[in-house]
Amino acid sequence: MQAIRKFKIAILQTKASKVKEQTLSYVQESLEEAGKNGAKVSILGETFNCLYMKEYCQAASENFSDSPDKTPTLNLLKEYAKKYNMFIIGSIPEKTSDDKLFNTGIAINSEGQLAAIHRKIHLFDINIPGRAVYKESDTFSSGNQITVVDTGFCKIGLGICYDIRFAEQALVMCQKLGAQILVYPGSFAMGTGPIHWELLLRARAIDNLAYVVGSCCARFTEDPSVYQAWGHSTLVDPFGKVLNTTDHDPTILYGEIDLDYLDQVRQQIPIYQQKRYDLYEIVHKIGNQ
Amino acid sequence: MQAIRKFKIAILQTKASKVKEQTLSYVQESLEEAGKNGAKVSILGETFNCLYMKEYCQAASENFSDSPDKTPTLNLLKEYAKKYNMFIIGSIPEKTSDDKLFNTGIAINSEGQLAAIHRKIHLFDINIPGRAVYKESDTFSSGNQITVVDTGFCKIGLGICYDIRFAEQALVMCQKLGAQILVYPGSFAMGTGPIHWELLLRARAIDNLAYVVGSCCARFTEDPSVYQAWGHSTLVDPFGKVLNTTDHDPTILYGEIDLDYLDQVRQQIPIYQQKRYDLYEIVHKIGNQ
Repeated sequence: MQAIRKFKIAILQTKASKVKEQTLSYVQESLEEAGKNGAKVSILGETFNCLYMKEYCQAASENFSDSPDKTPTLNLLKEYAKKYNMFIIGSIPEKTSDDKLFNTGIAINSEGQLAAIHRKIHLFDINIPGRAVYKESDTFSSGNQITVVDTGFCKIGLGICYDIRFAEQALVMCQKLGAQILVYPGSFAMGTGPIHWELLLRARAIDNLAYVVGSCCARFTEDPSVYQAWGHSTLVDPFGKVLNTTDHDPTILYGEIDLDYLDQVRQQIPIYQQKRYDLYEIVHKIGNQ
Repeated sequence: MQAIRKFKIAILQTKASKVKEQTLSYVQESLEEAGKNGAKVSILGETFNCLYMKEYCQAASENFSDSPDKTPTLNLLKEYAKKYNMFIIGSIPEKTSDDKLFNTGIAINSEGQLAAIHRKIHLFDINIPGRAVYKESDTFSSGNQITVVDTGFCKIGLGICYDIRFAEQALVMCQKLGAQILVYPGSFAMGTGPIHWELLLRARAIDNLAYVVGSCCARFTEDPSVYQAWGHSTLVDPFGKVLNTTDHDPTILYGEIDLDYLDQVRQQIPIYQQKRYDLYEIVHKIGNQ
């Protein structure tokens, strides 16, 4: 079998609603469209099945051990992964049996199985008056593992939003775990989005010579009391170039991932061979999930 | 004594010549101007005492153990550091007694002493046809130490040009050695400068919430067969914002370093407290210079 070296990726900046069922219908429409358009990998946003606020996250959370009738989000993704033979990634609120809530990246393979999860390890606790004040640890617990998932044709590192500020995590994902694409579902704030979102996506790309996806849900403008996310889903290539981006409205971005191009860039700028492990080293510690 | 918390920094994008004495006269003029204008710290470019090419680097190299009459660049900086009570940083070709050549950052304190050196640890060996093809290891040996220098009022991490592509070095400088300002004299190529230079400066700033200086000599446009440097000396603040930048002509950029602002940003985005050392760690290994 010929290895897949080039494929279409779709970034689904989906519309959200206060009602979970409605939100999922928007997600379904997007997955249908991306699938029909031949996406091999589809990327959804951060907590894509609800608004990014405590009450909605609690209400929309799913326990992955529950019976299928109680995990409609997971089921929807599994169905569409199989239907269109595509890999699907995004984050949703995960409720565990011991009643903890995690902001969890889920990766569904094209057989419709949950291939990997990434529980956000760095929570968005930030206090920039006038720009961004938030305490995500009031809502979520933090995960204890760095995650890279093998799709069979490429390796994808999973981070979520605030995780992107920690260069170490991306270095581990690429250097130690072989990631070629880094995916960050993220809901940056209106005060930090304009200056930091694209910068951080491009930084992670050029530091690791990797494709980087930042996926955000569409901004919920109907009610200004709801957290306003920056939007601006973006695809960056391994040379640090923005291949596709958008504003904050619902849309789907498409792009081509070219693993031969990635290899070429890594040969041209051979930082992986030039690291000075005699002077520094990034160490990966295996956490307990 | 009141600690210095705010001070003026000058980035000297100096003119170069094929003749070392002439180049040094341009450097002297710039130091005079920066000193008169009250710069507390002045930053020169990469190999600021010569053109960035093997033959000129060999000819302009100095052995720091030699008698003062043989180290005119070092002497000039020492003289102006004392004259204007300012810290001066930049890189020059260093020749060692065993006949090796290093691309060496020198830091002269305001008493006119050589306070620290940083021998470039990552050499610019790159092969991007049509954009940048260079093999710096044909000219220089590589250093074996990560360097942060204490000015007495702040800590400055020293990297040189290609070093900036290695996030690990900056993480060590800031996390392990306490750097508040990262200084990268650099001569980016015309093919990578436009897309990578400012991106990398801002990336190092936002990853570490540090001031970052990129200092380049002015482009030598008189002879196109000479290596053409991107120029664009730049000062970035700890929030990742470009405070001052320029094109490729000779100039001096000024900016204010505000260590209280730096502390404030590090409190507002508390990544230093949020690092997950249970999952990753950047390790610093002490090399032998």
